[in-house]
Amino acid sequence: MIQKIGFVRTILVENPSLTDNTADAQRLEQSLRRQLSTDEIRIPLKLLKKLPSNLRSWDFRARAVLFKDRHSWIVVDLLDPISNQSILGMAIDIGTTRIVISLIDLESGLEIGQKGFDNPQAVIGPDILARIHYSRQTNGLAELNQLVINAVNLNLSALCEENGYKKEDIYLVSGAGNTAMTHLFLGIESFEIIKEPYIPCVNIPDTQPACDLNLDINENGVVFLFPNIGSYFGGDLIAGILFSNLDQKQDPCIMVDVGTNAEVVVGNQDWLIACAGAAGPALEGGVSKMGMTAKPGVIDKVWIDPDTGDLMIHTIDEKKPVGICGSGMIDLAAGLFLSKRVDIRGKFSKQICGDRLFEKDGIKYFILVDKNHSGTGEPICLSQVDLNSLTSSKAAMYTILEVIVKNTAGLEFEDLQKFYVAGTFGSFINPVSAISIGMLPDIHLETFEVLGNSSLGGAKVLLKDPDAFERIMKIRQSITYIELNVNQEFMNMFSGAKFYPHTDRARFPSLENMI
Amino acid sequence: MIQKIGFVRTILVENPSLTDNTADAQRLEQSLRRQLSTDEIRIPLKLLKKLPSNLRSWDFRARAVLFKDRHSWIVVDLLDPISNQSILGMAIDIGTTRIVISLIDLESGLEIGQKGFDNPQAVIGPDILARIHYSRQTNGLAELNQLVINAVNLNLSALCEENGYKKEDIYLVSGAGNTAMTHLFLGIESFEIIKEPYIPCVNIPDTQPACDLNLDINENGVVFLFPNIGSYFGGDLIAGILFSNLDQKQDPCIMVDVGTNAEVVVGNQDWLIACAGAAGPALEGGVSKMGMTAKPGVIDKVWIDPDTGDLMIHTIDEKKPVGICGSGMIDLAAGLFLSKRVDIRGKFSKQICGDRLFEKDGIKYFILVDKNHSGTGEPICLSQVDLNSLTSSKAAMYTILEVIVKNTAGLEFEDLQKFYVAGTFGSFINPVSAISIGMLPDIHLETFEVLGNSSLGGAKVLLKDPDAFERIMKIRQSITYIELNVNQEFMNMFSGAKFYPHTDRARFPSLENMI
Repeated sequence: MIQKIGFVRTILVENPSLTDNTADAQRLEQSLRRQLSTDEIRIPLKLLKKLPSNLRSWDFRARAVLFKDRHSWIVVDLLDPISNQSILGMAIDIGTTRIVISLIDLESGLEIGQKGFDNPQAVIGPDILARIHYSRQTNGLAELNQLVINAVNLNLSALCEENGYKKEDIYLVSGAGNTAMTHLFLGIESFEIIKEPYIPCVNIPDTQPACDLNLDINENGVVFLFPNIGSYFGGDLIAGILFSNLDQKQDPCIMVDVGTNAEVVVGNQDWLIACAGAAGPALEGGVSKMGMTAKPGVIDKVWIDPDTGDLMIHTIDEKKPVGICGSGMIDLAAGLFLSKRVDIRGKFSKQICGDRLFEKDGIKYFILVDKNHSGTGEPICLSQVDLNSLTSSKAAMYTILEVIVKNTAGLEFEDLQKFYVAGTFGSFINPVSAISIGMLPDIHLETFEVLGNSSLGGAKVLLKDPDAFERIMKIRQSITYIELNVNQEFMNMFSGAKFYPHTDRARFPSLENMI
Repeated sequence: MIQKIGFVRTILVENPSLTDNTADAQRLEQSLRRQLSTDEIRIPLKLLKKLPSNLRSWDFRARAVLFKDRHSWIVVDLLDPISNQSILGMAIDIGTTRIVISLIDLESGLEIGQKGFDNPQAVIGPDILARIHYSRQTNGLAELNQLVINAVNLNLSALCEENGYKKEDIYLVSGAGNTAMTHLFLGIESFEIIKEPYIPCVNIPDTQPACDLNLDINENGVVFLFPNIGSYFGGDLIAGILFSNLDQKQDPCIMVDVGTNAEVVVGNQDWLIACAGAAGPALEGGVSKMGMTAKPGVIDKVWIDPDTGDLMIHTIDEKKPVGICGSGMIDLAAGLFLSKRVDIRGKFSKQICGDRLFEKDGIKYFILVDKNHSGTGEPICLSQVDLNSLTSSKAAMYTILEVIVKNTAGLEFEDLQKFYVAGTFGSFINPVSAISIGMLPDIHLETFEVLGNSSLGGAKVLLKDPDAFERIMKIRQSITYIELNVNQEFMNMFSGAKFYPHTDRARFPSLENMI
């Protein structure tokens, strides 16, 4: 892969003379204007202070660290052109639950290392709502802000040390998070985000000096956080679009970030339509009784043994099973349905399940792992309640896809050239299972592509590609955000999607061979 | 005078709604874009932090303090629309010798008060050269910078207190000084200014947060220093052009700032030609033996009694005479020449001066005030050496004017619609005297206009008029700066101008009636 010319460049400044007495700063501007094809350059005062002696001792050359935002190109720092100091950037995925930082060599574009850690704001509250409420207390906002900033500083420091770098080597920070997390990271009031009519304080944060945000990197470093479109459409999703290149596709593609909220964007280089809707908590761990986030012993894959028809499981690190994660749950539902243990209405079939089904307090339970094979000493069961919750979630997801692709964009699912699945959870979903239960549309398997952490991915793109900023601004401009109207039509579509795979079975032709 | 709409405005922000979920910051931007007809708005992060609650408690209105520089409009601060807090600006003339600050009410545009004080950098060295040399020592630059900043803070504090204002009321600072003083005020390296090829560090300093310059005003305040054109053509002169409106005249006008350096600009709305040249130290106090700056007892006016032909004097505060200032010196030379005590070669005439002339160590002295009437107990005398120095200065001034007006702009002196005399010293010059000795051209007296402190005047204009910045940038663009070539042609012109009033006496027809 050929590395594009990024934010670190060697700049040649014309030598001054009696016939050209232009000041050093303006000659540097002229040189950058030519090299960057721009009219707008900003050189901070602190770089001017020693510019004359630096330029002369560097023979009118400089290794420049640059950045570009919606206003202008910014000269972040100027270094001796023969210095071999590392010039790094940090990308951050500012998740509500988990934060991931990544260290990038700005010259090679290569990733040096990555580190994930829990968002320490969880001690205040597990979700956005609780944290924003807390932010209204005296010092609450500052406390939330410090928690996340300190955690980033601490982990960054460790990541640097592990890889033999100094914090002073980091000049650019690019962060993407949902709208609330972005506000808390910047330390700006965020309570209007959760109050009708749901107004963020800022859509497009400007580039900030890192020191103003107390981020412990090079003293001249700058920080940019991805813009949002509204309270419910954050910079993380814009970063995802950037990372997936949805905005540069000729044919329409779709990107789906599956989580508590399903965030969906469909479009191409000419148009983008986005919507977000509650896809149901069943898809994320920690909600159903047996559900949990990925850790050793958690069931992450379930399939039917083709010979015996038995349900087979795989656990993380192949430890004794202790629970099941979201992707395992989808596999399990698919396996239960394909083996007819669950009927098209999503109900356990007593006839097929046999003695693996028991009833307690009027609720049916399916025993996935008996207590002898369980890591907890208790059987691992799926209740009808959990399954109903999953059914609602998968139906909500399919309905959202149907609304945005068919009703809004006027396309058929088959028109989608690519179906990007973003988000850590999405990475583990087996499309075949998701199709089998009617959660994802029955399109060619090659259409599906896992993006991984697309929020972090987009933040990394911004560190490497000076054209990314314009794309971000264009993405913001070209997105039509549609509110999901939960009206009668939606409810009818949703009802159809609550069947396995759907009341309109013709939509899932590939299932005919499996069942 | 109708006050133009300045930098303090009441902004109405559209109320948010479920159908317009644009963020507060972007709605503020939209509103400012419409009101200011601009695309570029900058809102600092610290104003965002409380923007949501402020806007809501202010009913979506704000009293905004704005500023405009070459990049964008800057939102300096946002205040409660019903607050009656004063919003002030400070203009500074950053002179090498003397600094003058002026407090302006940004809403009415009226001046609240003014304060002048000596530039404390004089303890380091009296002139630019000495100070810039000092700036190369360890901490020298910082020391020079602190001296001037501390003095401004101290005097500003006093000026505020005298007028019943707080330092926090000051939001905008506009400063004009020569290129070296501007660099030292910003704390940036300045030694290349005095070294061939005389390159400033910066031509166009950006607007800076006041706190970055340690200026003790409102914490959100910003500072702008006038741009320069080169090491020898400073922001003070650009401010002067702005103040004189030279850049908006239909017919050509001239502005002359008389001092150690004579700085001359001629032009109109279409073109501007500038040059600067040493007009000789004789025009400023403190150089000739009897010369001194204005203070009580200093002779500031000299004239011939029409009845007796005696030389009459006036002193500042009408105290006993102790010396003479520049304007008095020009009057004196004119009186001596018109009364034939000095001949056309600028030499004392023993025949006319009689016993008021004496010789000591081969140098002739003219007794202006005998020791009985002197405030020093010694006679106040003008030596031939002092007079020669004045003759050189007046000849240099006339030659510079001739070079720029006739040889460069291709005009006659009579074509000049206005002849602006700028600078504190210039304010006191009697044009009749200056014409009599051939220092200024013999044009209609109504053509001459005294501008006073035009550097401070220009700095004040910038505080009141949002269009001033564009004018400043246009002035910079349209100025052709000519180097005075001291070649044979110049020397010939200079030789002619060393006569009283000139070898070509036909140039001074008005003198015929006086002699």
